[in-house]
Amino acid sequence: MSLAIGFDDVRAAAQRLAGVAERTPVRRSRRADEITGAQVFFKCENFQRIGAFKFRGAYNALAQFGPEQRRAGVIAFSSGNHAQAIALAARLLGMPSVIVMPHDAPPAKLAATRGYQQGLPGSEVVLYDRYTEDREAIGRRLAEQRGMTLIPPYDHPHVMAGQGTAALELIEQAGALDALLVCVGGGGLISGCAVAAKALCPAIAVHGVEPEAGNDTQLSLQRGEIVHIPTPQTIADGAQTQHSGQLTFAVIRALVAGIATVSDAQLVATMRFFAERMKMVVEPTGCLAAAALLEGALDLRGARVGVIVSGGNVDLARYAALIGGGPA
Amino acid sequence: MSLAIGFDDVRAAAQRLAGVAERTPVRRSRRADEITGAQVFFKCENFQRIGAFKFRGAYNALAQFGPEQRRAGVIAFSSGNHAQAIALAARLLGMPSVIVMPHDAPPAKLAATRGYQQGLPGSEVVLYDRYTEDREAIGRRLAEQRGMTLIPPYDHPHVMAGQGTAALELIEQAGALDALLVCVGGGGLISGCAVAAKALCPAIAVHGVEPEAGNDTQLSLQRGEIVHIPTPQTIADGAQTQHSGQLTFAVIRALVAGIATVSDAQLVATMRFFAERMKMVVEPTGCLAAAALLEGALDLRGARVGVIVSGGNVDLARYAALIGGGPA
Repeated sequence: MSLAIGFDDVRAAAQRLAGVAERTPVRRSRRADEITGAQVFFKCENFQRIGAFKFRGAYNALAQFGPEQRRAGVIAFSSGNHAQAIALAARLLGMPSVIVMPHDAPPAKLAATRGYQQGLPGSEVVLYDRYTEDREAIGRRLAEQRGMTLIPPYDHPHVMAGQGTAALELIEQAGALDALLVCVGGGGLISGCAVAAKALCPAIAVHGVEPEAGNDTQLSLQRGEIVHIPTPQTIADGAQTQHSGQLTFAVIRALVAGIATVSDAQLVATMRFFAERMKMVVEPTGCLAAAALLEGALDLRGARVGVIVSGGNVDLARYAALIGGGPA
Repeated sequence: MSLAIGFDDVRAAAQRLAGVAERTPVRRSRRADEITGAQVFFKCENFQRIGAFKFRGAYNALAQFGPEQRRAGVIAFSSGNHAQAIALAARLLGMPSVIVMPHDAPPAKLAATRGYQQGLPGSEVVLYDRYTEDREAIGRRLAEQRGMTLIPPYDHPHVMAGQGTAALELIEQAGALDALLVCVGGGGLISGCAVAAKALCPAIAVHGVEPEAGNDTQLSLQRGEIVHIPTPQTIADGAQTQHSGQLTFAVIRALVAGIATVSDAQLVATMRFFAERMKMVVEPTGCLAAAALLEGALDLRGARVGVIVSGGNVDLARYAALIGGGPA
């Protein structure tokens, strides 16, 4: 079976994103190298526009809309970074956006999403109850009623190709790598990154990292088919997915070496590491890949290792509570 | 009266620091530009080695020791970043260091300082009581007894020249600037930066920023002589100096346009801005320059403005308490 995207798609996405997305820095830490025995290269997508890699995929998808699609606009359902990413990409391309968000989404994310929509007629945030309503059904119904194009958060070739530009840039910036660590929610980021990384460094080992409580992709790889789990209880809210996508899972199965898992306590320790040693704010989901390495789930001594730091969007009060609670 | 340093000293310092100090990134923020109406370039010295600009001056000073001085080693008194900077510079140059620190210094800073001293015979941390003892007297006595060279935290030409490399790099990275904002404690950073900035952009306006509660340099400029004040009560612990130095004040009087002041509440608001919008951990003192611009003490609409973000060393529990306390 052929995969949904190839390296050419990632390269084309990189051209669309040039001058629009941030070419985020790759940072080193002597302490991280000491702890892990590896040479670690952190790709800082917490410094990306909207504070997370999601902008890459969203913009790459919307930039390929035809004239009719642009006029009608885009619809997305997301509790977090994908919502802001679509809203900002729509703003930059001058099209309306409708974002379906849970009514208990963090106030800062709601406000940011609405901010991007200002002055674009036809744009709105539609709230739903995440415990009783089905956001996908709401999204599909609105898309049909309004003639808008639904862009899902991960299972879409243009989204996957856009996210893959993070790995493309990282390898351009850091040079060849022996391993690449990427967090896994629905699989959009890791599938795009795996395609780019394997094209540039065929011998690279791409490792996914999931929260212990939400290891659906790990289970899926073991069983050879997509496993559905109940919404996992974890502080990594960007990885609270119940299953990977059809398109993303096919890429993961073909190109990913394996999936490691980390606990919430290890995520907090890694948030503290980033704050204390690298002076960076990283959201729990953004710590998944680094935590697997720094907390010992993966031993990559002697290797040149890329780590995607996927985002930094976390409510400040929650962030303070997580990092301020004494030694983790 | 000729100044203690010239631009050649800063350039020579930059050569000594090449490949040793971080060439820290210059970051932008669309939101900062919106708020201020200026183009703002943040020089991120919180990403410098030891987490603050102080490494520049310390290394530049120690790298100029003669063979005898190296053998005997260096002594410094500091409650914070200067201590770690001297200890790390001494380690890199293989010389002993004695650091005189208050017994109630943050545990993380004590531990980091001792960590750098490990394996270097003759190195130690000497604790004193900051309410009853005079650290300068202790430092001078130990220097004499042990034949070590005392490097003061700011009033020293090599320290000043080293700190000036931050502005030199910033202007190399960002291009010509109309204004440069720098925090003021003892004046080491601003004096070095002013010399570099005025040499590269003769029309630049260099503004110092002090905490409201500790505006000794502002008073000194008004009176035309160095004013001493009681230890100021402010969260900007790096600017709790009672007076500027002889050498630094002469440069400030000659080259600095003026001194703005900001309140602790404005520093907290700026810490939150950096965390929320730029995903960076910045210590209170490191927020002084940015706070003057973001919180409206200085109106630099239309200008290209450099802002030195001087450091990011803050105890995590204290940081969490400061940023987590609801809207500032």
